[in-house]
Amino acid sequence: MTICYGGIDLGGSFIKAGLLTGSGKVLHRLIVPAEVERGIAALKDNLRSVARGLIEAAPTYDAKVAGIGVGSPGTIRFPEGLVTGATPNIPGWIGTNISRIFSDFDLPVVGDNDANCMGLAEAMFGAGKGTKLGFYLTLGTGIGGAIIIDGKLLRGASYCAGEFGHMVLIYNGLECRTGRRGCLEQYVNAGGLIRETRKRLEKYPDSPLNDGDLDVVGILEAFRTGDPAAVESVEENADMIGTAIGSVVNLLNPEVVVIGGGMSQGGDRYIDLIRQSVFGYAFESTTSALKIKVAEFGNEAGWIGAACLNIGQIN
Amino acid sequence: MTICYGGIDLGGSFIKAGLLTGSGKVLHRLIVPAEVERGIAALKDNLRSVARGLIEAAPTYDAKVAGIGVGSPGTIRFPEGLVTGATPNIPGWIGTNISRIFSDFDLPVVGDNDANCMGLAEAMFGAGKGTKLGFYLTLGTGIGGAIIIDGKLLRGASYCAGEFGHMVLIYNGLECRTGRRGCLEQYVNAGGLIRETRKRLEKYPDSPLNDGDLDVVGILEAFRTGDPAAVESVEENADMIGTAIGSVVNLLNPEVVVIGGGMSQGGDRYIDLIRQSVFGYAFESTTSALKIKVAEFGNEAGWIGAACLNIGQIN
Repeated sequence: MTICYGGIDLGGSFIKAGLLTGSGKVLHRLIVPAEVERGIAALKDNLRSVARGLIEAAPTYDAKVAGIGVGSPGTIRFPEGLVTGATPNIPGWIGTNISRIFSDFDLPVVGDNDANCMGLAEAMFGAGKGTKLGFYLTLGTGIGGAIIIDGKLLRGASYCAGEFGHMVLIYNGLECRTGRRGCLEQYVNAGGLIRETRKRLEKYPDSPLNDGDLDVVGILEAFRTGDPAAVESVEENADMIGTAIGSVVNLLNPEVVVIGGGMSQGGDRYIDLIRQSVFGYAFESTTSALKIKVAEFGNEAGWIGAACLNIGQIN
Repeated sequence: MTICYGGIDLGGSFIKAGLLTGSGKVLHRLIVPAEVERGIAALKDNLRSVARGLIEAAPTYDAKVAGIGVGSPGTIRFPEGLVTGATPNIPGWIGTNISRIFSDFDLPVVGDNDANCMGLAEAMFGAGKGTKLGFYLTLGTGIGGAIIIDGKLLRGASYCAGEFGHMVLIYNGLECRTGRRGCLEQYVNAGGLIRETRKRLEKYPDSPLNDGDLDVVGILEAFRTGDPAAVESVEENADMIGTAIGSVVNLLNPEVVVIGGGMSQGGDRYIDLIRQSVFGYAFESTTSALKIKVAEFGNEAGWIGAACLNIGQIN
């Protein structure tokens, strides 16, 4: 009988989950709609049935679940998974004690922030494996981050560390959805890339991007085929992200920076532009030991990292 | 016979040094000119005679020196104190192995970056005492930083962590002395404050600041007396510093931010403006546990922190 670890990643749309061995092998996967629109009680029921599904699946692999980890958006107090900070996609979620949802389950359940889980997955078994000091970021609708030092997440004094998207990029700049001004996220997230591309399309009426709605996948594809509006906006986007990463590199001097999230799938040329900008902005003495990598676990990093929360802690 | 620890702070102008007990009591102080203009061999002689002075002074206090720490500008590989990165104020210093300067001394000598030492002094015995996660910054001609987690300096993968002054404040902004664009330091250091005040004086021909040279002490004094040019430039300076600190707070979620360096002596109103801006920019969930304090050791923090490098390591 193998010992394995359950991981659950709660998103605004789906709950992704699976079973992981202590050496990082994926045994089982499952995904169900989160149905947050049905309210918190229904969401808790869904989480419970996902957890039950994991426990019941384990024997199929001649395995037993030693513990479950849950990753959630928002500020989450580890280990009990108390939701203390805003999660706009899941109304009413604040105040929830995640581990208590499973209090009648006969195994330990812990909860942490989802970006932390993604970072942990990459640090333990993915692109950051074997490194001592890593910065993990996600690029998408939101811009998140996690810092992992000697295998441990830097959670911060009130479990809020890692808000990379709300570091300043342009002092007194554009207003962010959170009210502050000049945050990185406002410029470089999916919405920022779409906005900046749209601006440039006025100069390029012949661009095929003028037909239909703009989305990140389409813009990055147009960038690869040399569409001038997309080239301009993606180059600026990558340079802004790279400058912000370079800032963090100057502050933390990490061994590895791992880029995840939807936009990290933008292709080698996009990542190379980001890399170039990081190496241009960060000190040479700081980048001498630096690797910049794309996350390996894609949209599975959340549940894999949630499972990792218990590895080494229980067995 | 008490055990004590020698600390030496190498600056471009002076070598400051002293003896510290393991509980942070200052036993002895000395200061001599560094004479960097006389070359590296003379500088090494000066450092050796300072160290000898500390060892000889110890018995006066019924104490014995267990080890010596040296703080130096530049990138310094701890513990041996190998100087691997630029130190413009001390030409020829790169490549020096600080501990080897004292190889015939019968006690351990370690070396570290001076901003790291300042942070360590404040974390162990000063404004950050008793906290687990602190961000320590110095405001002056340069803007430096140090991160201390659970009593340990975050030195980074190549001993370069803490370059707070070279985080971006304004993407694609003013050129920094290091060649990059938009670094915090360029806007808010002593030179930046003087430049911004001078600009505003054009609007205020009656300001007494128009008479004679501008310096930081004079500008901060004029700010306190309500001089409109100084009020405008100091308010902007504090807001920029506070925004940058707020960014770091969003990233690291520290328990304490300690502000040191010459400009930290700018008075309560100046520090209050910085504090206000930090709390305005950082997330509420992040500032709920945050204290912002002025450094306690002033220009002694360097040697005190250098002495701290050995505390708990040897006895």
